[in-house]
Amino acid sequence: MNKLIVKKFGGTSVANAERIEAVADLVAKSVEDGNEVVVVLSAMGKSTDDLIKLSKEINPNPDLREYDALVSTGEQISVALLAMALQKRNIKGKSFTAYQLGIRTNSMHSRARILDVQVKKIKEEISNGVVPVITGFQGMNDEGDITTLGRGGSDTTGVALAVALEASECQIYTDVDGVFTTDPRLYDKARLLKKVTFEEMLELSSMGAKVLQLRAVEYASKYQMPIRVLSSFNAGEGTLIEEEDESMERPIVSGISSIDSEAKLTLRGVPDIPGVAAKILGPISEAGIEIDVIVQNISAENTTDFTFTVNEDDAVAAEAILLEMSNSFGGGLVEVDSDIAKISIVGRGMRAHAGIASKMFEALANEQINILLITTSEIKISVVIKRDSMKDAIVCLHDAFDLDKELDN
Amino acid sequence: MNKLIVKKFGGTSVANAERIEAVADLVAKSVEDGNEVVVVLSAMGKSTDDLIKLSKEINPNPDLREYDALVSTGEQISVALLAMALQKRNIKGKSFTAYQLGIRTNSMHSRARILDVQVKKIKEEISNGVVPVITGFQGMNDEGDITTLGRGGSDTTGVALAVALEASECQIYTDVDGVFTTDPRLYDKARLLKKVTFEEMLELSSMGAKVLQLRAVEYASKYQMPIRVLSSFNAGEGTLIEEEDESMERPIVSGISSIDSEAKLTLRGVPDIPGVAAKILGPISEAGIEIDVIVQNISAENTTDFTFTVNEDDAVAAEAILLEMSNSFGGGLVEVDSDIAKISIVGRGMRAHAGIASKMFEALANEQINILLITTSEIKISVVIKRDSMKDAIVCLHDAFDLDKELDN
Repeated sequence: MNKLIVKKFGGTSVANAERIEAVADLVAKSVEDGNEVVVVLSAMGKSTDDLIKLSKEINPNPDLREYDALVSTGEQISVALLAMALQKRNIKGKSFTAYQLGIRTNSMHSRARILDVQVKKIKEEISNGVVPVITGFQGMNDEGDITTLGRGGSDTTGVALAVALEASECQIYTDVDGVFTTDPRLYDKARLLKKVTFEEMLELSSMGAKVLQLRAVEYASKYQMPIRVLSSFNAGEGTLIEEEDESMERPIVSGISSIDSEAKLTLRGVPDIPGVAAKILGPISEAGIEIDVIVQNISAENTTDFTFTVNEDDAVAAEAILLEMSNSFGGGLVEVDSDIAKISIVGRGMRAHAGIASKMFEALANEQINILLITTSEIKISVVIKRDSMKDAIVCLHDAFDLDKELDN
Repeated sequence: MNKLIVKKFGGTSVANAERIEAVADLVAKSVEDGNEVVVVLSAMGKSTDDLIKLSKEINPNPDLREYDALVSTGEQISVALLAMALQKRNIKGKSFTAYQLGIRTNSMHSRARILDVQVKKIKEEISNGVVPVITGFQGMNDEGDITTLGRGGSDTTGVALAVALEASECQIYTDVDGVFTTDPRLYDKARLLKKVTFEEMLELSSMGAKVLQLRAVEYASKYQMPIRVLSSFNAGEGTLIEEEDESMERPIVSGISSIDSEAKLTLRGVPDIPGVAAKILGPISEAGIEIDVIVQNISAENTTDFTFTVNEDDAVAAEAILLEMSNSFGGGLVEVDSDIAKISIVGRGMRAHAGIASKMFEALANEQINILLITTSEIKISVVIKRDSMKDAIVCLHDAFDLDKELDN
C-alpha cells in the first residue's frame, strides 16, 4: 500500500548544490520504495541570515511586512533547485510556494501562525505522480501579503501539511541522528532514543534540545501526527515522536537536557502580596524578553525573593528594567548571574515513581554540585547550577538513571 | 496637478545597499515634487546570474517552470529592500510581486508575454499615499505558475504598468545618460539625443544600442506611452522616446548603432527556387538560434548565395546545421566569418531624403573601408564590414552626417 510521507529538510540539509543532490537521492529512494512523498524545505544554509544582514544595512528597523517578503525568497530558491534535482532523476518534482498553495496564516508578520492549509492542488499533483516541493516557514494572510512563521517555522509547515494531507508521518530531517538521552557532544555515552512521546519532546525541546521547533511538536501532538526526526547526512531510523501508547514501556527518565546560555536575575525583598509577579514580569515581556524559569521563594517578614532566567543576551536589558522598578518594590537588591547552566531530567515515567527528585539531588550532591534553583513539572525536574559543573552534572545524572542502557521503548 | 510616473530601475541601479539608497532618494525627490510614483525594479546586479549558475550546477537543463520560480526571487529581494529604504525616508513604500498584483502572462516560461495587468490594487494603494514597488521581469500564468519575461523584461513590466495605469510617462533608469548618436565609448563626439521616435528607437535598439528592450519599445509604441531613458547615477533629462509629431524637426540621421558580436554565414550555390530561404532558415530557428541580417544575392546559373548573421556564440552550431543540409542544396560551400561588425545609420528623415545611402558608402570608401553586406529598411541602412574597421566607420559616419551638431529636435 502507498504511504504518504511528508519530508522536511532544514537549512544545513540543503546548504549547497551537493547537499541538494543528496536530498534528491533520499527523496528518490523513498519514491522508489513505493511511497508518495511531499517535501518541505527551509532556505539554504545561512542564506536567510545574509538577507537579514542586507536589510539591516538599509533599514535597521524594517517594516515586518517587507521583512517577510524579503526572507521568504530563501525557501523559494531551495524548492526550485530541489525540483530541478528531482527532475534529473526522472522524478516529477514541482516546486510550490506557500503563497501558490494557499497556506493561510494570521497577519503577525515574522511570527505568523498557520490558520489553514489548502490541499486540493497538492492532492491533484500527487495523484499525477508529482512530488510537490513546498516552501516551509511561510504563508499568506487574508490581505494577500507574504508572511513568515519565525525561526524554525519550516517544521510547523511540515507538520501542518502532514496533518492536512493525512500523511502516515512527518519526517523532519536535520543534521543530527535523532533525539538522544543527552547531548552526545557533552557525554559520549548518550544513546539515541527510538521513541519519545510528544509530551517528553515538548519538555526536551523547550529545555534546550533544539532538534525540533516547539510549536511544531505542539501542532503534531494536537492532531496526533507522528514525527520522525532523522539525519539527512547519515542513514538510520531516527527517533519517532508520537502519542503515548499504553503498550509502551515507560522509562522513568528518558533524557537529560541542558542549556548554558541563560542568566539568572533576582529581585530581593519583594512584598509578598498578590499581583507582584505580574508587575515584575509584565515590563520584561513587553520589552520582548523571553523568560524561562521563574522561582519565587518565601522569605522573612512578608517579603520574598523573586528569581527568573532569561537568555544571557537579554540580561543587561532585563537588569535595567528591574533596577528601574526596584524602588516601587521597596528598593530591594537586584542580582544578576550569567555563570549558570540549567539541567533537566525528563521522563513520562516520573509520574508513577516517587523519589526521582531525591535521587537526582543525591547524585548531584555526590559530585559536590550545588543547586541554585529548582523547578518541577509533571514529567520534568530542572535545576540551575554553576556553569562549570554542567558537564559533570550531565554525566552523573546519565549514569544514575542508567540512560546508556536500552529500555525496549 | 499630480502626475503619475512609473519609474523602472535596472540591475546596476540597485546593485547594492548604497545604490538602493540612491534610488530611494530619487523616488523621494519625485514624491516631494508632487508626483504619484510607481516603481518597478530588476534584480540586484548580477544576482540573477548567480542563481542561474547555481541551478546549472544541479541541472544543466532545468525545467523552465522551475527556472522561472528560481530567478523570480531576485526582484522580490530588491523590491522589499527598496520599500524598506523608502520607509526610512517616511515614504509609504510597499513591495508587491507581479504574482500578488496579478500581472498575467502566457505560459511561455522564461520568455513569457504580458497578457493583462490588474491595477485595482495598485490604484487603491496609490490613493492611500503608498508608493508601490513592483517586481519587474515576471508574472503568473493561468495555472498559477510564476513566469518570467526574459532578459530585460523589467522594461516591459514598466511600460505595461504605465499603460495600464495611464501614467504620464514611463521612466527607465539605467547606467547611461540616455540614447546617444553613437556609443560614446567608441567616439567621444557622440551626443545625447533629447528626443527620438519609437520607430527610430526600435531600429537603434535592435541594432545593438542596448539601452532598452525591444519588446518594451514596441509595447510603448503600440499604446503611445512616452518612455524617458535616464541615468540613475547622474542627474539629467535623459532621452524622451515618443510618437512622431509633425512639429518635430526631422534629422536625416539620428544615430549610428554598431554591433561586433555577430558572425556571418554563407551557403553558396543554392538553387534559386521558391521556398529555399525557409528551408535553410527553418532548422536554424528550430535550434533556437536567432538570425539578424539576411541577404540573398542573385548569382549565375540559377543559383544564389545565401548569407545571414547570427550571434558569434551560435556560429559553430549554425555551421553544423548548414553543412548537414548543404547536400540537399547541391553541396554548395559553407563559409563562416566571425571577424565582422555591423554598422547602421538610423533616422526618420531618411524617408524624405534621397542620396543618404550613397553618402554613407562614399564616407566609408574615403576611409578605405570595404563593405561586405548591405541591407536597408525605411529608416535604416546597415552595412557589414571587417571588425577592425568598426571604430573608423563610426567616426567617419558620425562626422559625415554632422551628428555632433545639435538639431533642435
